[in-house]
Amino acid sequence: MTNLIPADDAFAASLELPPAAFPALTASYLEEPRGRYASGGGLLVAPSSTTEVAQIMAAAHAGRVAVVPYSGGTGLVGGQIAQDLPRPVILSLHRMNKIRAVHADENVLVAEAGVILADVQSAAEGVNRLFPLSLASEGSARIGGVLSTNAGGVNVLRYGNARDLCLGVEAVMPNGEVMNTLTRLRKNNTGYDMRHLLIGAEGSLGIITAAALRLSPRPASTGVALFAVESPRAALELLSLAGDIAGGTVSAFELMHRQGLDFLRETMPETRQPWPTPPDWTVLVDLGGPADFDPEVTLMNLFEAGSERGLVDDGLIAQSTREADEFWAIRETIPEANRRIGSVSSHDISVPLSSIPDFITQGTQAIAALGPFRVNCFGHVGDGNLHFNVFPDAGKSRADYEDARKTIKRTVHDLTHSFGGSVSAEHGIGRLKVDDLERYSDPTKLATMRAIKDALDPHGICNPGAVLRRAPSN
Amino acid sequence: MTNLIPADDAFAASLELPPAAFPALTASYLEEPRGRYASGGGLLVAPSSTTEVAQIMAAAHAGRVAVVPYSGGTGLVGGQIAQDLPRPVILSLHRMNKIRAVHADENVLVAEAGVILADVQSAAEGVNRLFPLSLASEGSARIGGVLSTNAGGVNVLRYGNARDLCLGVEAVMPNGEVMNTLTRLRKNNTGYDMRHLLIGAEGSLGIITAAALRLSPRPASTGVALFAVESPRAALELLSLAGDIAGGTVSAFELMHRQGLDFLRETMPETRQPWPTPPDWTVLVDLGGPADFDPEVTLMNLFEAGSERGLVDDGLIAQSTREADEFWAIRETIPEANRRIGSVSSHDISVPLSSIPDFITQGTQAIAALGPFRVNCFGHVGDGNLHFNVFPDAGKSRADYEDARKTIKRTVHDLTHSFGGSVSAEHGIGRLKVDDLERYSDPTKLATMRAIKDALDPHGICNPGAVLRRAPSN
Repeated sequence: MTNLIPADDAFAASLELPPAAFPALTASYLEEPRGRYASGGGLLVAPSSTTEVAQIMAAAHAGRVAVVPYSGGTGLVGGQIAQDLPRPVILSLHRMNKIRAVHADENVLVAEAGVILADVQSAAEGVNRLFPLSLASEGSARIGGVLSTNAGGVNVLRYGNARDLCLGVEAVMPNGEVMNTLTRLRKNNTGYDMRHLLIGAEGSLGIITAAALRLSPRPASTGVALFAVESPRAALELLSLAGDIAGGTVSAFELMHRQGLDFLRETMPETRQPWPTPPDWTVLVDLGGPADFDPEVTLMNLFEAGSERGLVDDGLIAQSTREADEFWAIRETIPEANRRIGSVSSHDISVPLSSIPDFITQGTQAIAALGPFRVNCFGHVGDGNLHFNVFPDAGKSRADYEDARKTIKRTVHDLTHSFGGSVSAEHGIGRLKVDDLERYSDPTKLATMRAIKDALDPHGICNPGAVLRRAPSN
Repeated sequence: MTNLIPADDAFAASLELPPAAFPALTASYLEEPRGRYASGGGLLVAPSSTTEVAQIMAAAHAGRVAVVPYSGGTGLVGGQIAQDLPRPVILSLHRMNKIRAVHADENVLVAEAGVILADVQSAAEGVNRLFPLSLASEGSARIGGVLSTNAGGVNVLRYGNARDLCLGVEAVMPNGEVMNTLTRLRKNNTGYDMRHLLIGAEGSLGIITAAALRLSPRPASTGVALFAVESPRAALELLSLAGDIAGGTVSAFELMHRQGLDFLRETMPETRQPWPTPPDWTVLVDLGGPADFDPEVTLMNLFEAGSERGLVDDGLIAQSTREADEFWAIRETIPEANRRIGSVSSHDISVPLSSIPDFITQGTQAIAALGPFRVNCFGHVGDGNLHFNVFPDAGKSRADYEDARKTIKRTVHDLTHSFGGSVSAEHGIGRLKVDDLERYSDPTKLATMRAIKDALDPHGICNPGAVLRRAPSN
């Protein structure tokens, strides 16, 4: 094992960076949003350019100093917080916050790693384009982190995950060398795809410093509806029907269990509820189409076809942009309602689409067998991505179940794995799920990952302990 | 350098495979379609299962025997033909030709590497789905090769390249271990993305044996038009306008120069020509939309908006499926017309979209400065992918220009590179463009590729000499 060396004052001085590169270390750099990971400290360094990132990485490589990259700090799996390293460099990208170029005619925007996601969305909107990546933390998440964790969100069904929205990256490799593959090309088959290796590597193979992002035309016509459906199986059949009727105009297809609406009513009674009596399952459908297209007509056709087949019991088609926003607000406020209730254990899982109904049935039964819990299952059903979250029984609190948490998590993850699913659909591995990765991953994949990590980062300085356990060899 | 050992009779016997795994070695395994690469021979092995592929790779790894994977044999850059190896294994995947599963409700199809692309398209159509990857060689190209070269084609604008249509792969690594990441998941953030590393690696990092492929709903309504445009710049502006007017329904946007139509008239006079007098530039637009959508209306609106802005001089909107097919046939027959004329030098390049007009102007001038050539420039302009092909002057033939070829290629590739473009947009590196990769690639990218190759294939047995030059270390 390479012994990692603390980033001491001499190391800081050796970087020869201006004082602005050393901002004060505030609490947010030492704890993740849910307070589950805390770091003992580190040397906060905030470079203002790719050249400065390269200087820092070269020095860290030469000096065997750990580097923990820090982007928006919104990750939920501890990828940005190292607990057990000897005073690492905490590399914050927030000063690299320039949008370098907007090519509206190419549907491309080039942003530095520190640009906030919402600012990319706004810049795209400013030239009548769409950057479709959209997630709860978009007001603080930054592009570098969004790519390093291959973030998902609500528009994946139509536009893909973060990796699908990136045409090229500029990155600093663990040895301090700059890899300039910041291409705006749509087709480029010149060797191994390094972009896709760095995306989703959570900073363990290098530091993404800038990215060329793919924009889309803004749909000229949009429409949103809520459908009450019998069951997850009915929701899936409705999704298939939506494909036939609405073609490629389906932008999002979200499923919500009644429990989420009940939590909303309980914790945020001011939220306007769509149904007088909530159905067991609600689907939100969002369409975006060309100018000569009326989403309301298509949503009505979908409602009728779904009703005929016995899939849909009730439906609400938004009659205004405000109403569409209200429908979306319900879906988007559920995570906050969950937070207020306080989950015993949350799970960001995905399964093959056709397994969703069986997974939900069996998962709910398995949790019931463990005790009187409340399950709130919701998510991006069009992507097979469910947030299957387990809550205390009414009148109890999260703290009453400390002992049960591990069993619950294991139960849900084992079940997910048995369906060929993923125990981290959109949040990544970070430090929270390293054990899970070792338990569930294909062993050849894990060995290949390790071989790549050792080849590119022989001293193990890049985000040590994230994704892969620190190996005996480093 | 690891000395590679010939695959002799003893090696063949050691594999313990049934006789069917050793078909006769026919000429097609030894020469690529254009006859530019020829191999001296090899041991042809055709496994029928992933287990057999693993046996072969493990034996080759242990015995230091080179393995050259062979899929449909349609590649144009010599990736499937090794000229200078001591009797390699030629690993043909053609017996692994099962479609393992079709999940229509999930829009997923799982195919073995040896399934022919057109058979995947048919299987998808059989369940009312679309597998959108479409290219000239689809009747013989096989899925393993299509993924290993990250093939492109005519629908990339809307549906992406081959890599974008693959959810997971099963592969045999260079050491013979099977990596089972054959997931049907849409979201899966559990570690490095090995799928995207193997896709586009042209068999140099392992052998893809099966893949989960992403299907799409079939557009319920389709429409095709030809527009005569003033210039490549007008074509680009029309593309942008199409985004505004037709939203995400634009499936393809192809550009053709008059030279292509002239070549068609010259070599295949039976082809129905769209224009009495061909314009300098023609754009083909293909729309696919939901049921409640009339592509003809949208194409007419696009024509009118384009005419108002002075972008479009004339337009033909297909009035029937047959006419739509005829429009497409013109575009798809141009490569055959090119073949009959016989190019001096062909170039599969891409540039950032907004650089297309300047690239074409400067490229045409640069070729004119080299002599009286005819240039046929056509391609997937929506992807920035041009086939910029240089032909003999009328009355001359390809053979008259042997001396000029290298200069022409260098001129076009240098110009492409100066625009931040790619010298292999969709065909890959193979053996033909190894020099180009070394000349034009970012050096850090090249070094990183080499480090990964050496880590995963330490003896350099996997398609040696393809993508990366055989290194001193192997």
